[in-house]
Amino acid sequence: MGSITAKSGALSSTLAHNAYGKSGIRLTKVTREDGKQLFKEMTVNIQLEGQFDLSYTTGDNSQIVATDSMKNTVYALAADHDLKDIESFAVLLARHFVGKYGHVKQANVHIVEDLWHRIISNGKEHAHSFVSAGNEKRVATARAGREGAETEETIDADVQSGLENLVVAKTTDSKFFGFVRDEYTTLKDADDRIFATSVEMIWHYNNMPSDFNKTYATVRQIVLDVFASHLSLAVQQTLYEIGKAVIAAVPEIEEVMVTMPNQHRLMFNLEPLGKQNKNEIFYLVDEPFGLITGTIRRGE
Amino acid sequence: MGSITAKSGALSSTLAHNAYGKSGIRLTKVTREDGKQLFKEMTVNIQLEGQFDLSYTTGDNSQIVATDSMKNTVYALAADHDLKDIESFAVLLARHFVGKYGHVKQANVHIVEDLWHRIISNGKEHAHSFVSAGNEKRVATARAGREGAETEETIDADVQSGLENLVVAKTTDSKFFGFVRDEYTTLKDADDRIFATSVEMIWHYNNMPSDFNKTYATVRQIVLDVFASHLSLAVQQTLYEIGKAVIAAVPEIEEVMVTMPNQHRLMFNLEPLGKQNKNEIFYLVDEPFGLITGTIRRGE
Amino acid sequence: MGSITAKSGALSSTLAHNAYGKSGIRLTKVTREDGKQLFKEMTVNIQLEGQFDLSYTTGDNSQIVATDSMKNTVYALAADHDLKDIESFAVLLARHFVGKYGHVKQANVHIVEDLWHRIISNGKEHAHSFVSAGNEKRVATARAGREGAETEETIDADVQSGLENLVVAKTTDSKFFGFVRDEYTTLKDADDRIFATSVEMIWHYNNMPSDFNKTYATVRQIVLDVFASHLSLAVQQTLYEIGKAVIAAVPEIEEVMVTMPNQHRLMFNLEPLGKQNKNEIFYLVDEPFGLITGTIRRGE
Amino acid sequence: MGSITAKSGALSSTLAHNAYGKSGIRLTKVTREDGKQLFKEMTVNIQLEGQFDLSYTTGDNSQIVATDSMKNTVYALAADHDLKDIESFAVLLARHFVGKYGHVKQANVHIVEDLWHRIISNGKEHAHSFVSAGNEKRVATARAGREGAETEETIDADVQSGLENLVVAKTTDSKFFGFVRDEYTTLKDADDRIFATSVEMIWHYNNMPSDFNKTYATVRQIVLDVFASHLSLAVQQTLYEIGKAVIAAVPEIEEVMVTMPNQHRLMFNLEPLGKQNKNEIFYLVDEPFGLITGTIRRGE
Repeated sequence: MGSITAKSGALSSTLAHNAYGKSGIRLTKVTREDGKQLFKEMTVNIQLEGQFDLSYTTGDNSQIVATDSMKNTVYALAADHDLKDIESFAVLLARHFVGKYGHVKQANVHIVEDLWHRIISNGKEHAHSFVSAGNEKRVATARAGREGAETEETIDADVQSGLENLVVAKTTDSKFFGFVRDEYTTLKDADDRIFATSVEMIWHYNNMPSDFNKTYATVRQIVLDVFASHLSLAVQQTLYEIGKAVIAAVPEIEEVMVTMPNQHRLMFNLEPLGKQNKNEIFYLVDEPFGLITGTIRRGE
Repeated sequence: MGSITAKSGALSSTLAHNAYGKSGIRLTKVTREDGKQLFKEMTVNIQLEGQFDLSYTTGDNSQIVATDSMKNTVYALAADHDLKDIESFAVLLARHFVGKYGHVKQANVHIVEDLWHRIISNGKEHAHSFVSAGNEKRVATARAGREGAETEETIDADVQSGLENLVVAKTTDSKFFGFVRDEYTTLKDADDRIFATSVEMIWHYNNMPSDFNKTYATVRQIVLDVFASHLSLAVQQTLYEIGKAVIAAVPEIEEVMVTMPNQHRLMFNLEPLGKQNKNEIFYLVDEPFGLITGTIRRGE
Repeated sequence: MGSITAKSGALSSTLAHNAYGKSGIRLTKVTREDGKQLFKEMTVNIQLEGQFDLSYTTGDNSQIVATDSMKNTVYALAADHDLKDIESFAVLLARHFVGKYGHVKQANVHIVEDLWHRIISNGKEHAHSFVSAGNEKRVATARAGREGAETEETIDADVQSGLENLVVAKTTDSKFFGFVRDEYTTLKDADDRIFATSVEMIWHYNNMPSDFNKTYATVRQIVLDVFASHLSLAVQQTLYEIGKAVIAAVPEIEEVMVTMPNQHRLMFNLEPLGKQNKNEIFYLVDEPFGLITGTIRRGE
Repeated sequence: MGSITAKSGALSSTLAHNAYGKSGIRLTKVTREDGKQLFKEMTVNIQLEGQFDLSYTTGDNSQIVATDSMKNTVYALAADHDLKDIESFAVLLARHFVGKYGHVKQANVHIVEDLWHRIISNGKEHAHSFVSAGNEKRVATARAGREGAETEETIDADVQSGLENLVVAKTTDSKFFGFVRDEYTTLKDADDRIFATSVEMIWHYNNMPSDFNKTYATVRQIVLDVFASHLSLAVQQTLYEIGKAVIAAVPEIEEVMVTMPNQHRLMFNLEPLGKQNKNEIFYLVDEPFGLITGTIRRGE
C-alpha cells in the first residue's frame, strides 16, 4: 500500500505498515440433523491489510470496514455455511473480505476450535449432549490476497491446519546425554527421565486434502503413536520423528512446523530426608522450560 | 487457641484466628509395575491451625513448622504411599501433622489431581504414555483434628471428594420459562436453548467407601448421564436431579454440594443482516454468568 | 428455608441448601462533572438465598428472579446512584433484592473494583484520561437479610471492605530463624532474605465510617508503611503488625482478616559455576508458596 | 544451516529449520548500594539457531548446549552485570552464546521486565521496599548473529525496546464515524465514546541511545500525553499520532510498531427498563475486540 508521510519541519514520519481487524469473535453453530445434532464452537480472528492510510493519518474512516461489521459478517456467513471443518470456513471468510472490498489487499483469518466429544451414556454416543475436550485446540489459518481482477471465487487463498495444546507425557523411554559440557553445565546425563510436553503443530499443504477432518485425525493419532512408542534421545529427536511420520503418512502435507516445550519434572532430592528416590518422586516446574522447535519438509 | 493481646494505651488488638501452610506443592509419582507404569500428578495444599501465636505477636518462631518442611513432608510421605487415590494420601498427610506436632490442633489438606488418560495406540492402552485429560480435576480434602491424647492412627480425620471443571453442553432439551416478570425483566421465555456448564461437586461420606476411585467414576458418569438425558426446565432442576441420582446410587455419600455456572450461549440477532436465525447461530458470553448452587442431602 | 424431599422407595434426598445469582456483571459508570469526569469500573456478583425450592425440585420457576433480571437491576440502579464508593452501591443492591422480593431471605453482593489513576500530563492530573492501576483491586461485600416486616430502607445490611493483590517486596529487613527443626527440615535460617507478598485484606466495621474512600486510602497506606518499615522476623509477625496498625488507626474497624502468601525468591546457587552469590541473585518460584493468614480483632 | 534428509523409500523429509532454547528464566537481582537498594526482576527467554541437526535426526546431542546450561548462564552473567537496563543485558547474553559456541549461528534473547515502584512512606521513596507496577511490562529483544570470525565483543547485535500492557482509558474526546456502510453494518456513528486500550509498542533504533532507561521513560510519557490530549477520530488515528510523536521526540528511534486493541465499553440499553442512558452506563466486553496495528517509520 502507499505510504503517507507526516512532516513537521525536518522531522517527518511515514506509516510503513498497517493492519486491523476483529479478534475473539466467539461463534457457536448447532446443526440440527435427523436424530442427532452437531455442535461446533470456535473463536474467529480477522485481520485486513489494504488502503486504510487515511484513517491513520487524518481520521477519515471512509476506507474503514468497521470491526463490528467484520463480526457481523462471521455470524451471517456462518448461517449459510455447513461448518463441516474450520479450514473451509476460514477460506470463505478470507475470500469474502478481499472479494467484497476492492481496497482490501489481504485478509488473514485465524480460527481456533474448541473441541467437544459426545457424551457416552449407556455405552452409546448421545445425540445432543457433549463433554469438553479441554484445552486441546484445532486451528486453521487462511490468507487471501488480491492479484489483479479476480472474482471472489477465484481469489487465491492459502490455508494451513494445526493443533495446539496436545499435552502428553511418558514415564520412561526418554534419555538425554552426550550434550555439551562446559563451565556452565550442571545438568547430569539422564538415562530414564519423564518426558512431558504440549505439542503444537502447523502444517502446510501441497494439495488440498479431500477431507480436512480426516487429515486432522490422522495427524493427531500419529503424534500420539510416535510419542508413545519412540525411544527418545532428545526432545529434538522425537519432534523430528513426529514430523517425518506425518510427512510420510499424509501426501498432501508439504511441511509441518512443530513446537514442543519441555515441561520438566525434576527428581525431588529425598536424601536429606533419609530416603532414597527410586526414580519415582518428581515435581513439576512451570518455569523455566525448554522450548524446542523444528520444521520438517517433504523431500530432500 | 489462646488469644494474645497487644495493648498500646487504650488501643489494643487481639489475634483472633490464625492459620498458615504451604500451597501449590506439585507432586508427580511414577509407580513402575511389571509391564505398565502408573503416573499420578497432583497439587497439594496444606494449612495448619494451632498454637502459633508467638510468631505473629513477637516473631518467635519456635512453634512454627516451616512451610518448606511441609513441602518436604509431602515428598517424603509420597515415597512410601501407594497413591492409589488422593483421598487416602490427604488423610495420611492431615493425620501426620496433627500426630507429629502436639501444638497443631487441626490440619487441612486439599489435593487437586491432574488427570491423565493412557494413550490408545494401535487400539491398545499404552503401558507408559499418557495424554492429559485437560482442565477437569479430581479433588479431595481431609481435615484432621486433635481431641485428647490420640495416637497418629486414631486421630479423627474427615474426608471429602469432588470433581471440578467437568464442562458439558447440550444443544436441546433445555427450557426456561415461568420465572418472575417485573420492570427489570427483559429475558424472554426459552423453549429450546443451549445449556452449557462447568460442573463442580464436593461430596461427604457417611461411611468410607471401599474404593474411592470407583466412587469417583460412578459419580462422574452419573453427572454425564443425568445431564445428557434430563429434560431441563431450569439449571436448578438439573442440578437437583444430578444430586438426587448421586445420593441414590452411592450409599456412602451422605451429602453432595453442586455448583453449576450457566455459561450462556446467546442467539445472535441476524435480522438486521437480512437473515433468519433458525436457533443455530450463537455466541458465548464469558461474563456475566448465572451461578447456581445447591446441596442435596440423604433422607428427608 | 423449608426443605423439600424427594422419595424414591427407600432412597430419599433433600435440598438442604440452595442459592443462585449472577456473577461477572461488568459495570462502567462515567460521571460527567464540570471540568472533569469520573470513571468507575467494577464487577458485581450477586447471590440470593430464599424460597427457590420449587425450581430445583420440580422445574417450576415461579419463585425465580432470572439472573438476567439481576444484571438489568445493576445497570438500572447504577444510573441513579452516584457510585462514590462501592460499599454504598453494594448495600443498595443487597437491600433492593431483599426489599423487593418477599421470598428472598438474604442477598449477598460482592463488588470488585478495577482501579484507575488519572494520567499525569504536563505535571497535572488529566480531566478525562486514565491509566490502569493494574491487578490491585478494591472490594466490598454487602449482605442484607430479612427479619420480620421491614421496609427496604430498614432492612439490616452488613458491609465489609477490602483490598486484593497489593503486591509488595522488600530486599532486606526480613529474617526467618528459630523455627522447628526435625527430620523433615532442610531450610536454613535466613538472616537477610527477600520478602515479597500479595496482600489481601477484608475488614469489618463496628460503625460505618463517614467516608469509605478515606478509610480505604488510610488502610492501604498503613499496609505500605508497616511493610516498608517493619523489621520482619516472620511473615506472620508482619501480618500481625499490619493488622494491629490498622486497628489502631481506624476506630470504625473492628476486625481485619489478612492473607499474605509468601512469594519466594530463592538464592541461585552459583558455586557450581565458580562464582559466589553475594545475596544478590535470586529466582522467583511461583509454586509452592507459603500462605499465611490471620485475623486481628479490636480489644482484648 | 545444512539440511539433513531422512529417506524411507520414495518418501523423504528434510529438517528445514530448527531452533531451541530456554524460556521463562525468572531472574531477580538486588544491588545493595549505600543507603538504598535496587531491585530488578525479569523473565529471560533464549532461542538459539545453528548446527543442531544431529540431535533432531539421530539423537546425537554433541552439538546441543543444554537448555539447563542456558539457564545457568543467565544467573552467572547476571552476577557480574549491573543490570542497569534490560537492553544491555539482552545484548550481553545474545553475544555470549554466539561468541562462545562456534556452531551457534544466531542467538535471540527476549527479556520481559516486571516493574516495581519504590513505596512512598512519609512522603519519601523508601530505600528498600517496593510496590508492583502491575501488568505493565518493559521488554527488550537482542539478536546476535555470526558473520565470519568475530570476537565476542565485535559480534553484531541488534536490539529493540518496547512496552506492553500499558492500559489506558478516556471517557470523552473519542469519535468514530464515516466508516463503510453496507449490508453487514449495524454499528452506529459514535460522537462521544469511551476509548480504552492496552498499548503495546516495539521500537527499533538507528543509533544506540546513551540511556535506555531515559528513552523508555520518554516514550511511555509520550504515549500517555498523546492518548490523553488527542481528539480521536479513530483508534487508527490515535495510534499514528503516538508513533509520530515518538519519532519526533527521540532521534535514535527509527521505527515503532504499535498495537492497540480496542477494549470496547458498550452503552447498556436502559430503555426497556424505563430509564434513559445519558452516556453514563456501560459494560465492558472482553471478546470480541478490535485489534489495530501500525508501524510508523522515520522519514518519507
